[in-house]
Order: sequence, then structure tokens, then C-alpha cells
Amino acid sequence: MLALDWGTTSLRGARLDVQGQVLEERSFARGILTVQAGEFPAVFETCFGDWMQAPDALCLMSGMVGSRQGWLEAPYCACPAGFAEIAAQLAWVEPGRIAIVPGLCCEMDGIPNVKRLERIPDVMRGEETQIFGALQLLGLQDALLVLPGTHSKWVQVRAGRIQSFSTFMTGEFFALLRQHSILSRTLPSGDTEFDDAAFEQGVTLALRGHSLLQTAFSTRTLSLFDRLPATALPSYLSGLVIGEELRAQPMAVGSSVVVIGSEALTQRYQKALALRGVAAQCLGAKATWTGLWAIAQTLARPN
Amino acid sequence: MLALDWGTTSLRGARLDVQGQVLEERSFARGILTVQAGEFPAVFETCFGDWMQAPDALCLMSGMVGSRQGWLEAPYCACPAGFAEIAAQLAWVEPGRIAIVPGLCCEMDGIPNVKRLERIPDVMRGEETQIFGALQLLGLQDALLVLPGTHSKWVQVRAGRIQSFSTFMTGEFFALLRQHSILSRTLPSGDTEFDDAAFEQGVTLALRGHSLLQTAFSTRTLSLFDRLPATALPSYLSGLVIGEELRAQPMAVGSSVVVIGSEALTQRYQKALALRGVAAQCLGAKATWTGLWAIAQTLARPN
Repeated sequence: MLALDWGTTSLRGARLDVQGQVLEERSFARGILTVQAGEFPAVFETCFGDWMQAPDALCLMSGMVGSRQGWLEAPYCACPAGFAEIAAQLAWVEPGRIAIVPGLCCEMDGIPNVKRLERIPDVMRGEETQIFGALQLLGLQDALLVLPGTHSKWVQVRAGRIQSFSTFMTGEFFALLRQHSILSRTLPSGDTEFDDAAFEQGVTLALRGHSLLQTAFSTRTLSLFDRLPATALPSYLSGLVIGEELRAQPMAVGSSVVVIGSEALTQRYQKALALRGVAAQCLGAKATWTGLWAIAQTLARPN
Repeated sequence: MLALDWGTTSLRGARLDVQGQVLEERSFARGILTVQAGEFPAVFETCFGDWMQAPDALCLMSGMVGSRQGWLEAPYCACPAGFAEIAAQLAWVEPGRIAIVPGLCCEMDGIPNVKRLERIPDVMRGEETQIFGALQLLGLQDALLVLPGTHSKWVQVRAGRIQSFSTFMTGEFFALLRQHSILSRTLPSGDTEFDDAAFEQGVTLALRGHSLLQTAFSTRTLSLFDRLPATALPSYLSGLVIGEELRAQPMAVGSSVVVIGSEALTQRYQKALALRGVAAQCLGAKATWTGLWAIAQTLARPN
């Protein structure tokens, strides 16, 4: 089978054998933002046509490809939602051959007695697949998970079902501050080496409870007064935003969190969680492929 | 005398009579960002040369014109600082004729036992003049003040001296989210009418203690699920960031805050403060002219 993670900015695919092991992986800068309506079949054919030659080829996709701006809109499943609900609500692009995994929606408590804001909706697309893959890989039924990134997701799983989740615009805030704010004049313009100490100092300050609106400005003043060298500032700022994200989570000291993401990001979160007294179990892209493979196993196939 | 508020993005001036009353005001889009090093005298002459014709003309300026990127660097006064210290440390561009009021610096508690971050510096330029002007206009010796804007300043005054202050990047965060984030795709691109109810709902949600990293995303989902109309979203987002700023202030219910700024902004802060149970006394540009005029009175002049 072919497993696809088709997101906003990238398109990644893996060819899996019957045991779910990865035979080959490919990655393209063809996120859905680069694809015009109607062009999805052609992009798919160009990138993965050769892998779909076999007569019983099956392709499952997750991510923003199932949004209104994607190939085919796959309506959200409402939380709480388990693996079985997701697998039963695939949106078929070509029946029996190409399908999209639905995203999830949930509602968090908003403002009591204000009708239109009593409950505030949240959404995910793609992360649900990584989560069920991770639960299977780790043999877990109950967990708190975080999927860090542009829009980090914090996810509560109980008895194998996703109960609720919430989105934090952590990666996007970092990029906005890094590239478009007054801080961009102080921070070095190119990439800098990761500065462990400065990152941990940023996390520590954020965990002390100051608002990000205030701590972000310290990136500028610490530089103005030569307290931190310019090369340390990006790591310090990264620590401030990730620390703010962690501060907002109800986690007990001594508890454990599953972190799913790239190695660079999961390592940062592991360091930051340690400063909060919380252990991390880290997983990478494998969670996506395992999740899609597990969904494929639920389908009654001709062969 | 001539009083000037020369900031990052704008240049405003007022001609005052001997009682400190405003005779005439002028405003130019000639903030220091538009002025090259060495060009300050020429810009000054073009904008205000006619007002400086009198033989005993005096000009006092406050704002970023005293920064390293300004006309002449006026070293910061350290907090606590009173009116007398500010007035005694003017940086003279032309002795007896043109001077710049120094800004302030202070240090807030940072991370204990981390040498370079035990104290975290903060700075202001221009606001100190507005503050002393406001204290004089209101006859106050003790007050909590806020000067909202791109970088809001919260200022503690005791016995007529500025004890400490802190900067919140509220206006800049709003602009970043409005113009450069994923929310910019959901929000209307042009100006919209201020929506009181949506603003107050944003403030209320922020005051409940959620992180801005999370509440900002609700601007998108509330729109996706048609809970808020697009025209209400800018006011809602403004409420979220201002509410986050207010949540971070240690203010008792029933207390009072002096708000100095444009009418549009001070009205928003007054509404938001009311939801926090705090009263507001609002002041505008007059605070700057009064502050500069009061400093001029301390100078021994030939006539």
C-alpha cells in the first residue's frame, strides 16, 4: 500500500509492505497551498503514479488534503473519537483505491452564558492518524500527547479514544516574531547553532508565569544591554514560546507525555518538559505510516 | 517654547505659551525611521524652523529621537527616577536652545541564580515625559499607569517617582497576527467597524487565563464554524491580546489606572479594564506637552 501525509506545505509518501514496514519514502514541496483546485490528480500521478501501477494498489492519505482547499473535503469526526470511527469514515476519492482519512473536531469550554462562545471549536487534520499510529506503536490506551509544530496539538486520549485536544500557535508565533517583529532587527538573519543554555533560560522564564507579551520584549532588551549574544537570541526566543505552551498545560510533575514530530523539535520539547518535571517519549514520522497502515487493515479488500 | 514628541514613526510638535497652553500643533510622518543619520537638523529646520525664529526660543524633545538611531543619544536614567532627575539630565543638541529628555531603564526580576538573567532590563523613551505630565495634570503622587500602543508600558509611580515599569508587545502582536499570520486569511483585509460585543468577548476569554497561543487560534475556528462573522473578528482578536495584557497585571478589583493614549485606544482599555473590575482615568496628547513644559520651567533661562 501507499501511505501519504499531504499537508499545507509538504507532501510525503511511503510505500509499505504487507507487514506495514516502510520499503521506500519520498518527499515533495507540493503542499496543498501549491496545488490549484482540479490539479490534485495530476500532482498525485506525477509524484506517485509508478507506485500505483499494481492492480490492487491502495492509497490512504491524511492531512490538509482532506480540507475544503484540498483534493476532496472529508467531514470532521467529532470527539470523543476512536480508531474505529476514523477508519469507518474515510472519504473515497476513487472507491476501493484512494481514500482520505477524516480530521477531528472538538469543543472546549469558552465563556459561560455567552451563547455563541459558550463552546469554542478546535480542529485537526493529519494528527489523528499520527496519534492512533503512536498509540499502536507504544501499546498505550491512555496518554497525553503533543504534536509540536506551526500549530501544536495537545491531545488527551482515554481508553483508546481521543477525548479532546487544543491547538497552540507556537511555531507560528515564533516565526512571526523572528521574521516580522521588531525583534527581527536584533536577531541574526541567518540560521544559528542551537544554544542549549539560552533555550533552557527562555523556557525557565516562561514557566515562571510572565506573559509572552512581556517576555518576548526581553529578547530585545537583553541584547541591547549585552546580556545575551545575538547568536543566542533565536534559541532564547524559542524557549520563551515553547515554555509558554508548556506552562498552559495541566500536567503533574512526574507524569509523562508522548511527543510526536521531527527529531529537532521533539528534542527541544523533551528538554523543555524536563524543566517542567515531565518525562517525554518521542516518536517521528513512523507514527503516520503505522496509523495509515492500521486503517488499511480494517478495510475488506478484494484480495 | 516648542515641545516635540519625535518617535519611531511620527513627529509631532506644539507651540506653547508662557502658561504652557497649546497655541498651535503640527504633525509629520517623519519618525526617526525615515531620517538618515546627519539629517536631523535639516528635518527639524524644515518642520519647525519658523517657530524657532525668536531669539530666546527653546525646544524640548522626547521620544526615540534620543536613542542611538536618533539625533543625539540621551543616556537612560535608572529607576527609581523622579521628575527632578529627568529634568537635570537633558541631552543638549544646542546648549540653551534644543534639548532631548532622557529615557528610563529599569530591571525586573528574572531567573534566580542564573547570572546573566537574574535581572532583566526594560526601557522607555518618551513615555516618562507623558507620565510626569499626567501626574501634574491629575495632581497625583501615587498611581499605576498604562500607555497602550505597539509596545504598551505599565508603570508604577510612588511618591512622585517612577519605581518600575514593564513593556508588553500588545499592539505589535495584534498587527503580526492581523497581517502576517494564518488569521490574516480569515480576517477581512480592510478596516472594519469596531464591534463592542466581540471585543468584550475576546477580553473575557483572555481574562479566564487561557494562553494567547491557544485563544488566538479560536479566531480562526470560530470563523470556520460560523460562530462569529468575519467583520467581528478584528475586534475579537483585539480583545484577546488586550485581555492577555490585563490578565498579567497585579491589580485589585476596585482599584484605578491612569490610561494615556489616543482616544480610540484609551476607550478600548477603559472597556477592558471595566471587565477586570478596574476604573480608568483617560488622558491624551496633552500629557506630553504638559510634561515638556514642566521640564522647561526647571531651566534657568536668560530672559
